[in-house]
Parts: sequence; structure tokens; C-alpha cells
Amino acid sequence: MAQEKDATGAMEWRIKMADGSSESLAPTEARGCPGIAWLALKGLVVGLVMKVCDFLKKAWDLGHNEPRKVIHGVKVGMALTAVSLFYYMRPLYEGVGGNAMWAVMTVVVVFENTVGATLSKSINRICGTLLAGFLAIGIHWIADRSGKDFEPFIIGFSVFLLASAATFSRFIPSVKARFDYGAMIFILTFSLVSVSGYRVDELFDLATQRMLTIIIGTCLCIVITMIICPIWAGEQLHMLITGNMDKLANSLDGCVADYFNDSEGFAGSDKESDKKLLGYKCVLGSKATEESMANFARWEPAHGQFNFRHPWKQYLKIGASMRNCAYCIEALNGCVSSENEVSELTKKHISNIAIKVSSHSSMVIKELARTMKTMKKSSAMDLLVGEMNNAVLKLQEDLKSLPNLFINPKPLLQEPECPENNTTTKAEAEATALMDIIPLVTLASLLIEIVARVEGMVSAVEELAKLAEFKAVGAEKANQNQTSNKIVPNQSAHQRV
Amino acid sequence: MAQEKDATGAMEWRIKMADGSSESLAPTEARGCPGIAWLALKGLVVGLVMKVCDFLKKAWDLGHNEPRKVIHGVKVGMALTAVSLFYYMRPLYEGVGGNAMWAVMTVVVVFENTVGATLSKSINRICGTLLAGFLAIGIHWIADRSGKDFEPFIIGFSVFLLASAATFSRFIPSVKARFDYGAMIFILTFSLVSVSGYRVDELFDLATQRMLTIIIGTCLCIVITMIICPIWAGEQLHMLITGNMDKLANSLDGCVADYFNDSEGFAGSDKESDKKLLGYKCVLGSKATEESMANFARWEPAHGQFNFRHPWKQYLKIGASMRNCAYCIEALNGCVSSENEVSELTKKHISNIAIKVSSHSSMVIKELARTMKTMKKSSAMDLLVGEMNNAVLKLQEDLKSLPNLFINPKPLLQEPECPENNTTTKAEAEATALMDIIPLVTLASLLIEIVARVEGMVSAVEELAKLAEFKAVGAEKANQNQTSNKIVPNQSAHQRV
Repeated sequence: MAQEKDATGAMEWRIKMADGSSESLAPTEARGCPGIAWLALKGLVVGLVMKVCDFLKKAWDLGHNEPRKVIHGVKVGMALTAVSLFYYMRPLYEGVGGNAMWAVMTVVVVFENTVGATLSKSINRICGTLLAGFLAIGIHWIADRSGKDFEPFIIGFSVFLLASAATFSRFIPSVKARFDYGAMIFILTFSLVSVSGYRVDELFDLATQRMLTIIIGTCLCIVITMIICPIWAGEQLHMLITGNMDKLANSLDGCVADYFNDSEGFAGSDKESDKKLLGYKCVLGSKATEESMANFARWEPAHGQFNFRHPWKQYLKIGASMRNCAYCIEALNGCVSSENEVSELTKKHISNIAIKVSSHSSMVIKELARTMKTMKKSSAMDLLVGEMNNAVLKLQEDLKSLPNLFINPKPLLQEPECPENNTTTKAEAEATALMDIIPLVTLASLLIEIVARVEGMVSAVEELAKLAEFKAVGAEKANQNQTSNKIVPNQSAHQRV
Repeated sequence: MAQEKDATGAMEWRIKMADGSSESLAPTEARGCPGIAWLALKGLVVGLVMKVCDFLKKAWDLGHNEPRKVIHGVKVGMALTAVSLFYYMRPLYEGVGGNAMWAVMTVVVVFENTVGATLSKSINRICGTLLAGFLAIGIHWIADRSGKDFEPFIIGFSVFLLASAATFSRFIPSVKARFDYGAMIFILTFSLVSVSGYRVDELFDLATQRMLTIIIGTCLCIVITMIICPIWAGEQLHMLITGNMDKLANSLDGCVADYFNDSEGFAGSDKESDKKLLGYKCVLGSKATEESMANFARWEPAHGQFNFRHPWKQYLKIGASMRNCAYCIEALNGCVSSENEVSELTKKHISNIAIKVSSHSSMVIKELARTMKTMKKSSAMDLLVGEMNNAVLKLQEDLKSLPNLFINPKPLLQEPECPENNTTTKAEAEATALMDIIPLVTLASLLIEIVARVEGMVSAVEELAKLAEFKAVGAEKANQNQTSNKIVPNQSAHQRV
């Protein structure tokens, strides 16, 4: 009995500890059903509160990290409040009749995060409504002429036919990319107008009023989205691509440097290496975002550094070439982190040149990012690409001298004439040595492939420079750039160590 | 003069040829401005007609290849025609007043391609409307009590606050994935009801009618989408993943076999190799589709082989493991197709085992696809994985014996005791030999990495089998499977040759 008491006492204590509150609970056996129900309810409520807190915390973090999203929310609120003025101000209200509703709806549906998306939706909405409205009135006119009996059939059939065709057209890639929303609005307006035309006699008045409210709504959206803290899809795309380039350069650099430094006991902090990993992963997963942004960016007028007909499509090609490069970095990362251990000696043999290749490639990538950021042709680019290619040649040469290394273990200390060993032992040693250098050879070969893909990036950016007519920088500036470029690798090497 | 005539004649001829029509054109000099305008107009019209024809051809091809998309269009047409019955049938029309419009709008907006998407939008629409309606009526009641002067301010402020908050909430990932549309409908309904509440006195009646029409619209959509040729998001996701697995297996197989066969003069046809390339690229780019389908699939009821709570999230993990594998195949493909030439002898040395590793890995992937298709645990899996790992071990051993090969160029014809050559010549020969085997070593090392990633796929599918409670196949069936598996590589090898 005393033992039982002890046990319940212990349980009570444990519940208290788990709860974290000092509230005293009766022992479980004494409480029965209502007690358990109370506990369950309490658990449920606590769980719910925790979930809500967690959600709010996430929302707060998001708002804190990306204040533009909060601003967008405020902008939508402003636009909606402004549009509801139509209800409060009697003269305006009577001007558009009961159709002020359409202005509210337009604002809610059309107001998007970026200017391009808002413009695209606005234009789609207006064109879709206009086209469908005229078509519906035309068909209504024909149906009206053909007598009361045929009217419902003609209208019903036309609704069926056009709705089916327009819905199917939304699957066609070229329509989906640019006019998806317009096709939906076309179906909506056509069915609404042609069907309500059967009842409402003042069809034309209705159509004009509705059109007017939609135009008022879209104009309000466009003005607010372009004046208050505008978020341009084009600018976002530009920043995404240049940011991703920097990330790619850092992860390439970090990945190779980590491999050679780890063994020397210079492992970076976990956070840093995580950040490095995140780098190329961002590039891998950004295709969908890039495509939608490029789609929206073409609707945008000139803004900042960008003209109206900025070659946004080329950004997609640059993105694809970056992903190509990131695939290789992914494979490199996988091969490098596999368990095969390489002896320090062989590692050291190509570590310098491998780090040189990776840092030269990442310098080229960073220079590409700089070219895009400043929108000025880089005069240092050819030099940097040349240096990168030289480093690759050197790497290939060093690879050639690897066999020397494992036939004559200390090539620098002994003479080239190697002592005559037993052939079988030598062959065995060589076999282990080859197994030893496999990760190194793979790394080198992937690095060479990465360099080839970086060149793909260079030509994609060069095409952009041609299409967007980047200006060349002045000679002095170029020199400055070159010196600053030369300083970069040392700096970053210092930071890494 | 005769020469000039000749020149214009030649030009006329050329125009005729380019045009493809036999229509005779007057020489350019005789025509002047109206003639040029006519030509330009004609070019424009022809260009436009060509574009339209091209568009229609694309649409026809799409409809021909994917008849389900045409069926979806027809389904939407049917739903819209059905909903317009509300206008034609007087008793129904009077039941819901002028709000029948909302039923049309609901159908247009809610009817999506897959059942899951339609259900998700329907539930979002109903919940969003209900929540916003009640909230708007509550706030309207409070505003009504606080006097005529304060009313517009209270309503305006509440619209501003709630619209801003709801718009911002759409950026939070968990809301965006499941309740994005609901949040939009919430804003729409709240602004419409609270703003029109200022004018319309019978607010409650309006709200009920609108709710009723929305429910009618969504029910119609759900019934039509689930009865007529239903397209289930879950089934689509399942088919996408299993299809991608087969593609991955084929491209892995094809990529390695092509490399070793090409040199023997057995290049596959262009079309086939293109298809092979397309294989893993499909896997690389399917992340967004998989995610949206998994999101929709959770709303779907039990259908076909799938229960209501089928672990759709696990499909995303399987997809991620497949992409991991595809990244390596991409790198492999890049390294293999680079210009470094390998001598036939060294190539032959590991060609058999490398092809064996790749065909064993692709057999494992195909078995995974079969497991998922039949939804039955494969008894052959352990055996296949074992064989794959054995092949990897053999590959590693063969790599070890590669140095023997290039020290003793004909290891099978000569004795292991090698004649004593001049050391420097030997070293040189070895250097070239190492350069020679670099692509092979890279290929082997990437293959080993791919095998590791295939094992990641195996464990992801095994977890799915556990979560979805796949049944084990009978012993006889397993034996059958095993034998049929054994036949597969030979068959495919024949097809390739």
C-alpha cells in the first residue's frame, strides 16, 4: 500500500514536472473520468495555444525578415478601403449603380505581389472581359432574332462550346504562360453576360457599367502597386539570379576548400558549412520561380536600370546554365563527402592547384554576378577566364605527375632514379595508391567539367550583355576592378582559415 | 535595258518561288507605294494565318496526345450549361433571387483539372465564405450599434485590418500550401458583405442566398468532376513518380551502355538517345508538379488502390531521392561526353563490370517502380540490392587492377615479371596512361555514388511500403519476378544493339 502511494506520488511529481506549473494535481486513481476528461481538454487547449503561438511566431519572423510582404498586405488593405469609398460616397455610388461590387472583386483578385503580375492580371482581366462581353452581346443579338423557342438553346450551346474551348486552351503552354487568367475571365464574363442577358433587358448598360468598375478597380491597383514601395518582378528576377550566382560561387569555393582543409584540422563551423550547402541547393530549386518572374517581368514598363523590352528570356537561359553547373557541384559534394580516405601526401599534391581552379572559377562566377549587377561589360572577364583555363591546364598536368608520386613516394627528396624494388610489391602498392587517388581524380575531373559549365554561364551572360547593350567600363575602372579581383581570393582564403 | 529586264524577271521568279503560289506579280519598279503596301499587308495576313494554323496544330496535337484535357474542357462546359439552368427555370431562379450569378462564378473558378484541386478549392471557398460572412455580419452589428457617424470608420478600418492580415497570411508557407484560395475568398467576401451591408438592409438574407448558390455551384462541380472520367491528383502523382523511375532507370542504363558501345560502333539512333536524355531531365524538373499534386491529393477520398490517408508526403521524399540520383546521372552524362578519349584496351577492362553495375542499379530502380505500381512488397528487392552491391565491390577490385594494366600493357599475354625498362620512359607512359583512365575512374566513381543514392531511393520506397502497409507477394510470384528480372537486362541489351 505504501508502495502504491509512493508510485502515485511519483507520478504526480512527474506530471508536475512535465507540466512545468506548480499546480497540485490529485492522484490519478482518485480523479476518475471527469478528471481525465479535464486533463485531456487541458492538453488539447494547451496544444492549440502552442500551435497558434508557433504560427504567430512564424508569421512574425516572416514579416521581420521580409518587410516587403507586410507592405504588400498593407497596400491591399489600402486599395480595398479606397474602393469601398464608392459605397460611402453617394454620387460615385449612383454613377456605377449596384456594380461597385465589381470594383471590390477586381481589387481582391488582381492585386498581386509584384507590379508585373498585377499588370498582367489587369490586362488579362480587361481584355478577357471586353472580348467576352462583345461576343456575348453578339450571340445574344442573334439568339434574340431567332425567336423565343430557340433562344435558350442557342445561348446554352454557345456557352457550352466556348467554355469548353477556352478551358482547353488554358492547357496550351503559350496560352498558359501569358493568358491563363484572361481565359478564365473570358469564360466567366461570357457565361454571366449571355446568361443574365436572358433576363436583364438593359444588357448594354450593364456591360458598360461593369466594364467601368473593372477599369476603376484595375487602375486603382496599378497606381497603388506602382507608387507605394513598388516590387518589380524584373528586379526580383535580376536579384535572384545575381544572388544565386554569388551563392554558387561560394559553395563551389567552400566545397573544395573544405575537402582539403578538413584533413588539416581547419573545419569550418557547422553554420557556415550549412550555409555553403544551402547555396547551390537554392540554384537547383529556383526554376519555377524564375519562369514565373520572367513571365511577369515582360509586362512591366521601364524601371530602374531596365528598359521595357529588357531581354528577360535570356535570364532563364542564364538560370539554366547555372543549374547545369549546380548539378555538377552536387555530384562533387556527394563524391567528396563519401567515406574513401585519401592519404595526406597525395591530397597535398593537387590541393593547391584544385583550390586554385575552384577559386578561379568562383572568381569568374562572381565577376559574372558583378557584370550583371552593374550592367556594365567587364574588361577583366577575358583575363579571369584565361586564368581559370590556365589553372585547369595546370591541374591536368599535375594529374599526369600523380603516377610519379606513387611510384617514387618522395619525388622531391630522392633522385628520379628509383631503387629497384620487387615488382609484385610495387604493383600492390600502386593498386592501393590508385584506390587512394580515385576521389582526387574524380574531384579533379568534376572540377574540369564544372569549369566547362562555368564557360557556358559566361557565354549566356555575354549574350545578355549583347542583347541588353551593356556599356563597357572605362580603362581606369577596369584596372581597379582587376586589382580588386586579384585581392579577392587572398581575402577569402584568409577568412576561411 | 535587256539586262534590267532580266534582273526584274529573276526577282519576280524568286518572289514566286518563295511564295510558293503561281500568282504573277508585276515587277517592283512598276508598282510603287500601293504595291508595297499590298505586299506588306499580304505578308502580314499570311503570317497571321500561319501563326493561327500553327497554334491550332499545337492545340490539336495536345488534344490528341492527352485526351483527358479535352474531356476536362467538355466537363467544364457541361457544368456551366447545367448551372445556367437556374436562369432558364423560373422557380429555381426565384428561389435564389439575383444571386444565381454566384453559382456561375463558383463553377468557373472552382472547377479544376483534378478531383483534389476541385475539392480543395471548393472547401476553401465554402469555409472562407462562411468565416468571412459571419465575421462581417458581426462587425456590421457592432458598427450599427455605435451610431451613424462611426459606422463608416469602423467598417473601413476593419476591412483595412483584416484584408492586410489575410493578404500577409497568404505568404506563410503552411497557409500558402493549403489555404491560399480560402484566404483570398475570405478577403473578397468580407469586403463585399461588410461594404454592401452599408446599403442593403436584408443582409442576412443576402448572405444565406449567396451561401446557397455557392454550395450549389461547388456540389455540381464536385459531382461532375468525380463521376465523369475523374482525374485524381493522387493517381497522377503515383503515375508521375513510377514513370519517372522507369525513365531514370533507362537513362542510367543507356548513358553507360552508350559510352562503352559508341566506341565499338554501336551508336543508338538519335531519336533513342534523345529519349534517353529526356529521361532524367524529366526527373530534374518535376519538383513543383510533385508538390502541387501531393497538396491536392490529400483532399481526395479513397480511390482505386489508395486510401483516404495515403502517405502522399512520402512520395515527395521519394521524388527528392530520385532527383538526388538524377543529379549524379547528369554529371555522369557530362563527364562521359567530354572530349577526353580513352583507349579501347583500358575501356574494355572495366566496360563489362561498369555496364553490370549500371544495369543492376537500373534493375533495382525498375523493381522499385514495380513495387510501387503493384503496391506489393517485392521479395526480390534484397537480392537485387545485394547483387548491385556485389557488382560495386567487383568494380572497385577491377579499378585496383587498372595500374597492372598500364604497367604491363598486356597482362594476360606476358608474365607478371616485367622487363626492366628505362624508368623515365615508363613514368611517361604511366602519365599518359593515367590521363587515359581519368574518364574511366570518374565514371566508376560516379557510378559508385549513384549506387549509394539508389540505396537512398530503396529506403524511401521501403518507408512508403511501411506507411501504406504494402502486402508481401506470395513465394511463387516472387520466383517468377526474379526470373523475369534476370531476363530483362539481356532483352534490353539486345534492343540497344
